[in-house]
Amino acid sequence: MSVDLMPNRYRPGEAEIAPRDAALIARRDAVLGSSYRLQYRRPVHFVRGEGMWLYDPDGRAYLDFYNNVPSLGHCHPEVNAAMAAQAGRISANTRYLEPQLVDYAERLVATFPGELDRVVFTCTGSESNDLALRIARLVTGNEGVIVSSYAYHGTSAAVAMVSPNLGEAVQLSPSVRMVDLPGPAGVADAQAAAFFEAQVRAAIKDLNRRGIGVAALLIDSIFSSDGVWVDPPGFIAGAVAAVREAGGLFIADEVQPGFGRTGAHMWGFERHGIAPDLATLGKPMGNGFPIGAVVGRHAAMDRFGATARYSNTFAGNTVGIATADAVLTILQRDRILENALAMGARLDAGLAQLSSRLAGIRAVRHAGLFFGIDIGLDGMAAAQRRAMALTIVNALRDDGVLISTTGANEDTLKVRPPLICEAAHVDRFLQALQDALGAAAP
Amino acid sequence: MSVDLMPNRYRPGEAEIAPRDAALIARRDAVLGSSYRLQYRRPVHFVRGEGMWLYDPDGRAYLDFYNNVPSLGHCHPEVNAAMAAQAGRISANTRYLEPQLVDYAERLVATFPGELDRVVFTCTGSESNDLALRIARLVTGNEGVIVSSYAYHGTSAAVAMVSPNLGEAVQLSPSVRMVDLPGPAGVADAQAAAFFEAQVRAAIKDLNRRGIGVAALLIDSIFSSDGVWVDPPGFIAGAVAAVREAGGLFIADEVQPGFGRTGAHMWGFERHGIAPDLATLGKPMGNGFPIGAVVGRHAAMDRFGATARYSNTFAGNTVGIATADAVLTILQRDRILENALAMGARLDAGLAQLSSRLAGIRAVRHAGLFFGIDIGLDGMAAAQRRAMALTIVNALRDDGVLISTTGANEDTLKVRPPLICEAAHVDRFLQALQDALGAAAP
Repeated sequence: MSVDLMPNRYRPGEAEIAPRDAALIARRDAVLGSSYRLQYRRPVHFVRGEGMWLYDPDGRAYLDFYNNVPSLGHCHPEVNAAMAAQAGRISANTRYLEPQLVDYAERLVATFPGELDRVVFTCTGSESNDLALRIARLVTGNEGVIVSSYAYHGTSAAVAMVSPNLGEAVQLSPSVRMVDLPGPAGVADAQAAAFFEAQVRAAIKDLNRRGIGVAALLIDSIFSSDGVWVDPPGFIAGAVAAVREAGGLFIADEVQPGFGRTGAHMWGFERHGIAPDLATLGKPMGNGFPIGAVVGRHAAMDRFGATARYSNTFAGNTVGIATADAVLTILQRDRILENALAMGARLDAGLAQLSSRLAGIRAVRHAGLFFGIDIGLDGMAAAQRRAMALTIVNALRDDGVLISTTGANEDTLKVRPPLICEAAHVDRFLQALQDALGAAAP
Repeated sequence: MSVDLMPNRYRPGEAEIAPRDAALIARRDAVLGSSYRLQYRRPVHFVRGEGMWLYDPDGRAYLDFYNNVPSLGHCHPEVNAAMAAQAGRISANTRYLEPQLVDYAERLVATFPGELDRVVFTCTGSESNDLALRIARLVTGNEGVIVSSYAYHGTSAAVAMVSPNLGEAVQLSPSVRMVDLPGPAGVADAQAAAFFEAQVRAAIKDLNRRGIGVAALLIDSIFSSDGVWVDPPGFIAGAVAAVREAGGLFIADEVQPGFGRTGAHMWGFERHGIAPDLATLGKPMGNGFPIGAVVGRHAAMDRFGATARYSNTFAGNTVGIATADAVLTILQRDRILENALAMGARLDAGLAQLSSRLAGIRAVRHAGLFFGIDIGLDGMAAAQRRAMALTIVNALRDDGVLISTTGANEDTLKVRPPLICEAAHVDRFLQALQDALGAAAP
């Protein structure tokens, strides 16, 4: 693979940059260095956010169809008020008694199937996946981890080593195995479950033959970095059973699909009709406040906790908990999932209509408000499709609509608006995409 | 070692608990499970914080001489106002252009020696140390890490594996080596540097003989979890030189000593007159908001960043940056370091006076407002000293003063008040300690 793994980014000299921005980019490069990337050929600077909209210094509005952290919309006043009020009362850690911590933990766990009855808090999705791997390895006594071909699970050392999406420069663990997904392999829905299970069984066999054993199948159930592969529902069940048979755990990475992103369910794994041993949470949990969690079955969680002290200074602190509590309250009270489902259906219908009239959309996949839209024209090579997707993303940016790309070839549009989006926003996005498609077709 | 590594904690049945608290503890145990610990024999619940004080539900005030996260005091109104104002404007990530991110990065880096000129943001001290190890291993091509005997560097898988302080239940990395400190080994100051360098050279030799090589010497320059060993200044310099000679990096874990805790300097390594290759920041950086960083030399930082994408959704986001920026402004404007130095001297003098009058204090070590106070009477065995320290900590808690224990034998009082503490607070603590010492001596 020599695909640029973050094609939608700023590269010096590629586009005209305003002098003000060029000066800031130079200062930024000098102090932040090369591990930081800017999105878009012409990077954007936002000074204000509200609901579905971000505003640049000139007051221009951008429709946010990309950021999945502020699921309830940018700068949600009620969430921010909860955060500020708690910060003004007390910011205390989990080593003191705190009813609100226990209340929220109970409310959160209640959104899971009954057997997932314990929670440990973290600050980021990376910390959640890192901790879940620690638990799985300690509990199973095995080291092996099975992930999808283009999986991304975070930035810590242990998690980066099971994230092939980070590219060849980041070393993979000797104990990770990647499995192909049925969709990208062109396998029909009827054979998808058997295909995926066979992939996973082969990985287990290889791990066992080398004495590594299988600690976990770690997957994001909508496979967002692989290009959004959501169907058919249930296709992962046989693979999960195979992993359990081999003594491993199933870890559902809910950082992307969790908290209602898929509309029909609170948690992505529910789409597949199975419950994980551990679920890892992050991004939208605090609508922007750094908070994550591992929710799991008490057998695994308690076996870990009985021996290993896990103390995370900031995680579960009262301010993060008050913020996450407000997010969960609003998600449930305002029927955010129903909205995600309805708006997802509207967007899906609009895309079907669009692709019946215009060339350039090869396929649309989605669950709720997480869409993968494959781009390309008949006969295009992979590199051309990738270039076309990139052109569309940047045309949308210039038109004031934010999305990006995903997938093995990065020719899939990644579309995941805040869950509060309304019909008018969906229609605005569809219009912008139609214009960009028209312009991008050679 | 069979020392309980968190002796100062709640154990069912050990002390009388109010029914209200007992019910909450039962619910807490059911949903959070066994990896969570509560401090003190009788756990405390705080409902309000202000400056140096925490208040329980009955309105009782506790003097906080323990929490090193709220360095500027609990619920600092100016810090909270900066956080709330930014959250109301925009919470954006580092992939958009953001002058405030660059401004703060420049201000932060300017507090370091000139050669440390790059910063990458994280959300926690654990993430900072985890990333620093990733950088050191990639840059050196080696795996070995040298730490102190009772080091604690965080909770991620990679960092927990180089944290012997977590106890025997947490597996150590095959490539970590622990070195003894001169102080606990009873080595005189004049021989301290040579002793420590010899320890580190032996570790390097062993790592090289096994083909592991040395990636980094990772130390907290005041050795807080080893029992606070700060003297003589400069004693680590020869060891650092030896590590560099062997191709490794020196990582200064500044999570505990950083941001002025030692009074005389902004960063703990400055006490020893040497500059690290990488410095890791956390705890007090946002006075409670989850933010951390790795600051380093561009040679190492850029070599890592040029190949490995490091993207941390929450880290460096505008709300965290605005909060940390307010903290740095107040630290500098209000001369917080000068206060830490002065109050540290006052506390040190008070402890000297106290130990001249009362038995029970075997030694006092400190830098600025981080104190280690060794407890015990002549002829006491280690277990008795540990029990006496624990008794004192809990007597202070009952008297409304918060501290805890540290060190290999956990018989050292760990005292680290917010840096804003005043003479009256120091005197109140001294009075409480005097009372507890009097009561604890058999």
